[in-house]
Amino acid sequence: MAVEARFRLLLAVAVFLCAAESKYIQYNTTSRLVPGKLNVHLVAHTHDDVGWLKTVDQYYVGSNNSIQGACVQNVLDSLIPALLADKNRKFIYVEQAFFQRWWRDQSEEVQDTVKELISSGQLELINGGMCMHDEAAPHYIDMIDQTTLGHRFIKQEFNLTPRIGWQIDPFGHSAVQAYLLGAEVGFDSLFFGRIDYQDRAKRKDEKSLEVVWQGSKSLGSSAQIFAGAFPKNYEPPSDNFYFEINDASPIVQDDMDLFDYNVPDRVNDFVSAAISQANFTRTNHIMWTMGTDFKYQYAHTWFRQMDKFINYVNQDGRVNALYSTPSIYTDAKYAANESWPIKSDDFFPYADDVNAYWTGYFTSRPALKGYVRVMSGYYLAARQLEFFKGLSKSGPNTDSLADALALAQHHDAVSGTSKQHVADDYAKRLSIGYVEAEKVVAESLACMTEPSDAGCKSVVTKFQQCPLLNISYCPSSEVDLSQGKDLVIVVYNSLGWKREDVIKIPVVSENVTVKDSTGKEIESQILPLLNASLTIRNALVKAYLGISPSVTPSYWLAFSATVPPLGFSTYIVSSAKQTATTSERRTVYKTELSQNDAIEVGPGNLKLSYSGSDGKLIAYTNSRSSVNELVNQSFSYYYGDDGKHKNKSDEQASGAYIFRPNGTYPINSAGEVSFTVLRGPLLDEVHQRINSWIYQVTRVYKEKEHAEIEFTVGPIPIDDGIGKEIVTKITTSMKTNKQFYTDSNGRDFIERIRDYRKDWDLEVNQPVAGNYYPINLGIYAKDSSTELSVLVDRSVGGSSIVDGQLELMIHRRLLYDDARGVGEALNETVCIQDDCKGLTVTGKYYLRFDPIGEGAKWRRSFGQEIYSPFLLAFTEQDGDQWTKSHVTTFSGMDPSYSLPDNVAILTIQELEDGKVLFRLAHLYEIEEDKDLSVMASVEVEKVFADKKIKQITEMSLSANQGRAEMEKKRLVWKVEGSSSEEEEPKVLRGGPVDPTKLVVDLAPMEIRTFTVDFYSNHSTAEK
Amino acid sequence: MAVEARFRLLLAVAVFLCAAESKYIQYNTTSRLVPGKLNVHLVAHTHDDVGWLKTVDQYYVGSNNSIQGACVQNVLDSLIPALLADKNRKFIYVEQAFFQRWWRDQSEEVQDTVKELISSGQLELINGGMCMHDEAAPHYIDMIDQTTLGHRFIKQEFNLTPRIGWQIDPFGHSAVQAYLLGAEVGFDSLFFGRIDYQDRAKRKDEKSLEVVWQGSKSLGSSAQIFAGAFPKNYEPPSDNFYFEINDASPIVQDDMDLFDYNVPDRVNDFVSAAISQANFTRTNHIMWTMGTDFKYQYAHTWFRQMDKFINYVNQDGRVNALYSTPSIYTDAKYAANESWPIKSDDFFPYADDVNAYWTGYFTSRPALKGYVRVMSGYYLAARQLEFFKGLSKSGPNTDSLADALALAQHHDAVSGTSKQHVADDYAKRLSIGYVEAEKVVAESLACMTEPSDAGCKSVVTKFQQCPLLNISYCPSSEVDLSQGKDLVIVVYNSLGWKREDVIKIPVVSENVTVKDSTGKEIESQILPLLNASLTIRNALVKAYLGISPSVTPSYWLAFSATVPPLGFSTYIVSSAKQTATTSERRTVYKTELSQNDAIEVGPGNLKLSYSGSDGKLIAYTNSRSSVNELVNQSFSYYYGDDGKHKNKSDEQASGAYIFRPNGTYPINSAGEVSFTVLRGPLLDEVHQRINSWIYQVTRVYKEKEHAEIEFTVGPIPIDDGIGKEIVTKITTSMKTNKQFYTDSNGRDFIERIRDYRKDWDLEVNQPVAGNYYPINLGIYAKDSSTELSVLVDRSVGGSSIVDGQLELMIHRRLLYDDARGVGEALNETVCIQDDCKGLTVTGKYYLRFDPIGEGAKWRRSFGQEIYSPFLLAFTEQDGDQWTKSHVTTFSGMDPSYSLPDNVAILTIQELEDGKVLFRLAHLYEIEEDKDLSVMASVEVEKVFADKKIKQITEMSLSANQGRAEMEKKRLVWKVEGSSSEEEEPKVLRGGPVDPTKLVVDLAPMEIRTFTVDFYSNHSTAEK
Repeated sequence: MAVEARFRLLLAVAVFLCAAESKYIQYNTTSRLVPGKLNVHLVAHTHDDVGWLKTVDQYYVGSNNSIQGACVQNVLDSLIPALLADKNRKFIYVEQAFFQRWWRDQSEEVQDTVKELISSGQLELINGGMCMHDEAAPHYIDMIDQTTLGHRFIKQEFNLTPRIGWQIDPFGHSAVQAYLLGAEVGFDSLFFGRIDYQDRAKRKDEKSLEVVWQGSKSLGSSAQIFAGAFPKNYEPPSDNFYFEINDASPIVQDDMDLFDYNVPDRVNDFVSAAISQANFTRTNHIMWTMGTDFKYQYAHTWFRQMDKFINYVNQDGRVNALYSTPSIYTDAKYAANESWPIKSDDFFPYADDVNAYWTGYFTSRPALKGYVRVMSGYYLAARQLEFFKGLSKSGPNTDSLADALALAQHHDAVSGTSKQHVADDYAKRLSIGYVEAEKVVAESLACMTEPSDAGCKSVVTKFQQCPLLNISYCPSSEVDLSQGKDLVIVVYNSLGWKREDVIKIPVVSENVTVKDSTGKEIESQILPLLNASLTIRNALVKAYLGISPSVTPSYWLAFSATVPPLGFSTYIVSSAKQTATTSERRTVYKTELSQNDAIEVGPGNLKLSYSGSDGKLIAYTNSRSSVNELVNQSFSYYYGDDGKHKNKSDEQASGAYIFRPNGTYPINSAGEVSFTVLRGPLLDEVHQRINSWIYQVTRVYKEKEHAEIEFTVGPIPIDDGIGKEIVTKITTSMKTNKQFYTDSNGRDFIERIRDYRKDWDLEVNQPVAGNYYPINLGIYAKDSSTELSVLVDRSVGGSSIVDGQLELMIHRRLLYDDARGVGEALNETVCIQDDCKGLTVTGKYYLRFDPIGEGAKWRRSFGQEIYSPFLLAFTEQDGDQWTKSHVTTFSGMDPSYSLPDNVAILTIQELEDGKVLFRLAHLYEIEEDKDLSVMASVEVEKVFADKKIKQITEMSLSANQGRAEMEKKRLVWKVEGSSSEEEEPKVLRGGPVDPTKLVVDLAPMEIRTFTVDFYSNHSTAEK
Repeated sequence: MAVEARFRLLLAVAVFLCAAESKYIQYNTTSRLVPGKLNVHLVAHTHDDVGWLKTVDQYYVGSNNSIQGACVQNVLDSLIPALLADKNRKFIYVEQAFFQRWWRDQSEEVQDTVKELISSGQLELINGGMCMHDEAAPHYIDMIDQTTLGHRFIKQEFNLTPRIGWQIDPFGHSAVQAYLLGAEVGFDSLFFGRIDYQDRAKRKDEKSLEVVWQGSKSLGSSAQIFAGAFPKNYEPPSDNFYFEINDASPIVQDDMDLFDYNVPDRVNDFVSAAISQANFTRTNHIMWTMGTDFKYQYAHTWFRQMDKFINYVNQDGRVNALYSTPSIYTDAKYAANESWPIKSDDFFPYADDVNAYWTGYFTSRPALKGYVRVMSGYYLAARQLEFFKGLSKSGPNTDSLADALALAQHHDAVSGTSKQHVADDYAKRLSIGYVEAEKVVAESLACMTEPSDAGCKSVVTKFQQCPLLNISYCPSSEVDLSQGKDLVIVVYNSLGWKREDVIKIPVVSENVTVKDSTGKEIESQILPLLNASLTIRNALVKAYLGISPSVTPSYWLAFSATVPPLGFSTYIVSSAKQTATTSERRTVYKTELSQNDAIEVGPGNLKLSYSGSDGKLIAYTNSRSSVNELVNQSFSYYYGDDGKHKNKSDEQASGAYIFRPNGTYPINSAGEVSFTVLRGPLLDEVHQRINSWIYQVTRVYKEKEHAEIEFTVGPIPIDDGIGKEIVTKITTSMKTNKQFYTDSNGRDFIERIRDYRKDWDLEVNQPVAGNYYPINLGIYAKDSSTELSVLVDRSVGGSSIVDGQLELMIHRRLLYDDARGVGEALNETVCIQDDCKGLTVTGKYYLRFDPIGEGAKWRRSFGQEIYSPFLLAFTEQDGDQWTKSHVTTFSGMDPSYSLPDNVAILTIQELEDGKVLFRLAHLYEIEEDKDLSVMASVEVEKVFADKKIKQITEMSLSANQGRAEMEKKRLVWKVEGSSSEEEEPKVLRGGPVDPTKLVVDLAPMEIRTFTVDFYSNHSTAEK
């Protein structure tokens, strides 16, 4: 017998295993709000990234699980029975990209069930955009579009409008999110998880995590929203409330017939976590975000534990636990009649630790960011053309581009923080969407260029477009015209104003001539296509199209095009005996730059001067505005910190999210450098090879008063084992006094002060990274006499680290992961077969000095032109037949009409029901421009000259409810320190539209959204 | 603009994201068997260990997930809706311990639903015991009991009998499993996953993984079963068919609107895996075990993928995939009318690699193994006493002991392969079960010792029992009798024969006398309680009870008790003037062992001789049988290999599962050793301290012809950093010619031949570990004249590594994990407060030589006595009142009756419905004993002398169906090479029971199970 047989007679607990009797337990989950008690709102949620470590489709179906175990199908599949099992259970779902995929897969029965769950409020769709968009890198038009896409689906399928903004994961929070995508879409509140750790600490201390956020100076209290930052993140309150399958948190073991019964322990855990949170929260309501990334794959596991907690915690009685949603929570907060601190501006930049400023992602994946921006502008134009032609539900339409663009706004997409294969997926989707939209555009133009009696019925013209014009590749224009063919170029202008701009296309011969729509020959200029461009062209065409171009163009043909608003003009390029004006070609190699004379460039008012000795920019002179500024432009790089430090707490690498520089190094020209000036009647170009991997072209146009700087950077060398982050710096002698201004998602400009935060006493740990801000439109600085503005062609990070200087980060190549989840170094490459090199990025920025107070006009108007460049379509035609047999010029608007200078059309889009979504934006903030920061008016009938308006209805920004209805429901929150008697500054807003006049007034920064119903007899095309 | 914006125009696949149209797909899962095609039987299953890394309760509720993510509640919860979703889906569930826990938790509605699913066959309960018992370490009675417990529940709740044996995980497979727990419970087939890797390779080659298994020589073809070893394990056919949440296998992506559509690839994967398996399988049917440990936590994830596979694979048409079960598979195999190879004996030992013989677990956790065996015998007796008293459904009963014992048979429980905390849980449950059963026993004895007119109505006696008698701790007997109190000892005999045995209890005084039931004083013997025993007693009482015993007994009182079958006798110990016969005490320390005279020990026929010089056993002499054998007994240890080898493939440590010795080392006495002989009229004891951590007592009884050897081993020293596995060896000069015999689960003896397997040409890699076999009853060897038999008190591993020698592994302490999942080194300790020492194990084995052909009688009869020792109950009584006022002797059987020598009662148990479960076993195999290997008869009316039988029904072994019904359904399989004309050897079986005679005939090795219905007027107790 066993001495040690572990008889535990006396230790034996008095627990006896029951006989097989049923002991089914029903939990009481009926609890609602209890006044006077601490109410713990359990908000069951999943956070489903629309692409990150896996692609959106992989996340949806649950493939590629070796990278990350995640399957959204499971979440939604399992959710439905879990909600049906107990009508007190509630859940919020956020990302419509997933929800729509799932919805399409369901049987009618399931769809009906889900409709009931949604209508009863058990399942609440919040946020409601296709994705939880990033707030740093997206343009506000993209944010509006992707939100509209989601919101309209919800409206159509469920007749509901989401009430809550739920931006829990983005890495900092923008003013535009708060006022535009929050208040203006009719949200009652906005919640988020990430704010600066110093800010958070102070807010916890002062119970000011929850605020009233006025994101817009111009719209003030008319566009404010109740906003709450979570105490920690968007996860359960502590480590031991996670209940995904296989999670290690202790479950509530309430079966007395089994060992390890732990109800009292778990109730205590719950109560103490609740009390701890209540200590830094105003009112008797706290929210527990019960979920995290891709959880609820088997929803039952969470609800079972929450059922038990609600049951036993409420039996205990110290606090009140209930199933809730952010809507219920918001209503409870509102009902508490508490006063809240006010918050202005934004929550950038975001740091989660001393050396962890999430300001790298403002620039990460600059090529993807550029592609997104190009597609955004194209989508805007394509929808206009789709409207002109008439929407085709089955045939090619802009839906897939809309979808791809929506996904690309996700906070791991355009942000640049996804894995490489996922970034490729976003690009692939954009490409597919583009190909389809390109067809819409081509068909629409073909249709509109036909004489009106032919219309769209017998369209024959196949218009080509040149999406790779940016790498000097345009097969349509690289044709041999010597045999009598004409090249027809239809130039579309999606802006609401008439517009003139220089068009540049590659051609094979310099013997060409350009005629305008009337057949009149116009001035043009031939520029040599230099080797630097050809090298890139040939390599990238090979890399992306898999072919080697058969033709090599030798020249750029430049000419100036003028196009009416919402319309097109036609230009014909033909072979000509005589040469077009060739640019004066002057090549000065650096070694020859020994003279002291400055080199002056610029055919018009603007002259740039370069040093004759080293080719550096030295001065900017505008003879019209009498601006004269000494200015230098240079490149530097920061070493990306590799995180290898002795101090554990110091181990932070620079990576996809985080910018952590380890020293700044100026880039001095070395080796084979060059300085070449090309001159001509339309523009001058300065070509500079800075070093073996930086090439720069500066353009000064005769008719423009800004410099256009095109950089080509890469492959960034890493043979030294050090990642690098490339910046370009504009240095002046301006006394900018630490101040500069950056836009919020391309819309409002926000004042930034170096090493300073309005909301708390900043402890400066990262003097560079901590002063970086996202830039979508531009950055500017000023002193007493001058404004220096820089506008960008995509989202980048930028700052003013030194007075008088602005800098943009334009490219990053890093070798270490920054430990925020993506698990890859941000080291983009381009491969031809197996030969991979670091990614080369080409981009542009635009530079201008203005007298103080006059910069806004350029920033706003030209900013719109950057976003919406001319859209070019090409075809060939024998002889000069085209002008005779086709419509060569067109405007959708009344020929006499143009939008006011301070208004832009954001959207003209035919909807599925035949109505048209019409969105107008005032482009100026209050006090931004002395002439244009005023109420503007748009005559809608003249915008749609060819149509007759039956009805126009003002909608919320996301077009999912009537504006009036939305305003009626708006919650008015009490702001701390402001007595209700105090006179609020009057906010200017455009009034209701008089249906007899159909004039839309827009106050500064106002965006107004309408659905327009037309009489159908004006339809121009079959559908 | 971005040069590198990853436009992928030409790469763009012609896939367009659809508009939001519903595209719900219904899968065709209706497929059934298709003749002429390869049928792939998808068997959806989960393998849920009834304790392993976590306790059974933790696995059930899903707690302690940091150790292992596993929650059986999830499995069963999620299964029901998954089955309801498609009536073609099927699932098997195996472990009733979990199923019953879950069943108790369900609402009536769910229970009704489950009943429908079970009755429709969608959910099939197979195997059906409480656990998937181990096949090496359990005793066959425990296997029967735990299977009966599960099977009867299934019968009661669902009126169903499981058809399939499903022993997929146990580490080798026993003959008893095949014929007794397979054929005799009415299973149509038996499946398992683990067989020797060499065996498997050959069987794949010969398509002989599936066989007809005749596990019993005696019952032959009457108890054969179709048995299948899986081609690899019990998991899906290859790495890419796992579909648990977050598993990395590629899902079937059949949504053409999403990227990564992969239906053709996955269909090819499926077909090629099927064809590969078909290549080593007979017939057109292969089984895919779709699941593994604790899977289907969200059952939907598996079924969704299997739905798709069935749909698309059958569309493809190369093979036929279907939802199936092992029952459907078995029927298909049967219908194929194929011939199958025959298999005899068993599948031990199991090796899964060259150096990986799973023979360590035969001994792992010897203390737990001992405790299980003690409880098993106690449970048998307790149920008899419960029957005599009458079952109490509410009050104390034997149910929780039944439950604990059932769990303890799990293949990670008694096997010793669980984590330590789980082993503690098994012991705790046994202890709790014991405490309750102890009450049943005490009440029943109290009841039966009352005069019959009082009966159970006024029971006052509180009987104490002494479960720690094995560590010399018995407070009931350690009383001071000098004040006139008598110690009353009721001795219960659960065997069906009258029996005589020596009882030993600790007493505080040597002045005691013993009287029998008639009041007659009987011979007794006083032995000193030596220090070695006291040290252990005091330490372990402290460790397990947390107290220090207040009394220290100085003596053992020994006397011989005689007890009728199924009955009790009473012995009274009183204070006496004169001393009981004191053992002659002769202490010879080794240093004094200088004389040459041998020391002879033994008061009866048997004499053991020890060397006078070194105290070693040298000879065994039985004067009655004239056996004279030179014999040596010694201890050795194997170094447990630490797995640290240069060769990766050689990195196998010895651990809980695997025995991998790295050298054998004899244990030579060293340091303070001793040799002490105690002599007396009833028994002689030889006490030997072998070394500081091995102590041995050898007992020779006057009336017994075997030696009883009690070893105390531990703490095994590990200061040298080396784990050790302790063996005791019996060495003789017998010419055993590599042959020896070990029992199968305590029942049939199987011939073993060293370095040889009947089924294949063994490649010998591990000459020791590869020759180890599990021993539950005993091991024996023989030569032309003599048999040497060793019987054990628990499950151990043993072998005959050298001719003439037998060895038992009695303890193991190892320092490395053997990488089979348990993740702990097998290093058991005992702690007093924080002072932990290696576990000390005490156990016994019994040694006997017989003339050739005469050993079976002792092995069988005495083996039964080891399993069912006397049950002692103690009380105190003033003076000599007891005999006058109480029933002092009792037999449940007719006083004139005794079972035949070759029959034992396995079960007498009152069932919930008042019927009695009655199980008889013939103890002998054919040709085992010239007198006893014959048909035996039991007169049932005489067994239940006090009751009147209304009806007796023969049942299947697990008592869940009538035997006749079971036999009618039995499938008869064609055996390869045997033509149907060939005369089969006639198998002997007892015939049907004539209801008028009520005599049960039992052929050799037959076990027959009955339910007996009694007339209730004979009921002896209230219920």
